[in-house]
Amino acid sequence: MKLYDFHGAPSPKRVRVFLAEKGIEIPTEEVNLREGAQNTPEFRAVNPSCTVPVLELDDGTRICEAIAICRYFEATTPEPPLMGIDARDAAVVAMWEHRCEQDGYMAVADALRNSAPRMKGRALPGPVGYEQIPALAERSKVRVGHFFEMLDRRLAMDAFVAGPRYSVADITALVAVEFAGRVDLAIPESCRHAQRWHREVSARPSAAA
Amino acid sequence: MKLYDFHGAPSPKRVRVFLAEKGIEIPTEEVNLREGAQNTPEFRAVNPSCTVPVLELDDGTRICEAIAICRYFEATTPEPPLMGIDARDAAVVAMWEHRCEQDGYMAVADALRNSAPRMKGRALPGPVGYEQIPALAERSKVRVGHFFEMLDRRLAMDAFVAGPRYSVADITALVAVEFAGRVDLAIPESCRHAQRWHREVSARPSAAA
Repeated sequence: MKLYDFHGAPSPKRVRVFLAEKGIEIPTEEVNLREGAQNTPEFRAVNPSCTVPVLELDDGTRICEAIAICRYFEATTPEPPLMGIDARDAAVVAMWEHRCEQDGYMAVADALRNSAPRMKGRALPGPVGYEQIPALAERSKVRVGHFFEMLDRRLAMDAFVAGPRYSVADITALVAVEFAGRVDLAIPESCRHAQRWHREVSARPSAAA
Repeated sequence: MKLYDFHGAPSPKRVRVFLAEKGIEIPTEEVNLREGAQNTPEFRAVNPSCTVPVLELDDGTRICEAIAICRYFEATTPEPPLMGIDARDAAVVAMWEHRCEQDGYMAVADALRNSAPRMKGRALPGPVGYEQIPALAERSKVRVGHFFEMLDRRLAMDAFVAGPRYSVADITALVAVEFAGRVDLAIPESCRHAQRWHREVSARPSAAA
């Protein structure tokens, strides 16, 4: 088993934090996205979508997409549960994880990829080149602001994003918040519930993974 | 238990097809998105994100996001399995479902919402008004074309999107393909594997849900 990883990118961090919370250690191979290692013929043979993370199982199966890799380890190493403790809780966790990904993580990705000079011609991950759309970067920054406010309302009600227990929804939200720093956006001081949560989840050892 | 639904929108269809495959029938309430019923104070109290589908459980818990609702029913009604039969398969299904959602379904949504006159000022779902970005509509149409090609390469290898068994990944892909019709995009004739798959999944009784 091997994880194709890159420490400079947010998506594989979602998996690393998840593994750290589970106490799982597996071999990794660094794919330097800054140097374009994802576009080599060797890596395209691993993942034609040219993204990390990729989990390679011993039977050769390759699992791409961070949430799918987490799903694998939740099934093989159920403790501690990070994707819900029963049917209802699993659905609540999936809801918040998906929302944090779409409204937080993806909004930050759109803001960054459509504005950063080094992303010119690569406004979406993958093998196809797409031109940047500056108006999308601006709109996405507004979305990120609304995401912070949504997080704050949510975290006024519970200790963690999906309820009283730490879950994969916290991981996606944490990585989205860190990622937002790259477009100079941060949880506003006024969002004190989200600030409290961010301090707490950032202080867990897994956050350094 | 009740499902807030709307027959004119693609997202709740993902849940309806899933329920039909499971043979589950539950009460539904139609929320007419065309008439703005998602923005009324009554519905905002149900889902502040102003989207359907929403599953309301008997204890009052509300599950939003199509994939989270599917997750609930997969746990409570495991047969037939639509989200994988073991850890490896569950991860493979989750990977393809996520990819079809991001590269297919979301690309179509961006294409439609950033171009349709009736979506003016509502380029993203939810309570916040966002202006349309015509360049994003155009870029998204290109993405949908690449999605069809990706589907075709995938379906050259297996009967269904995530392997030899019908799964939730087929449902997301099917709804994305149907949704693409609204921006006048269809699987090209040259994508004969994707065409074959589309004929087969469209012929299942669940496709009419």
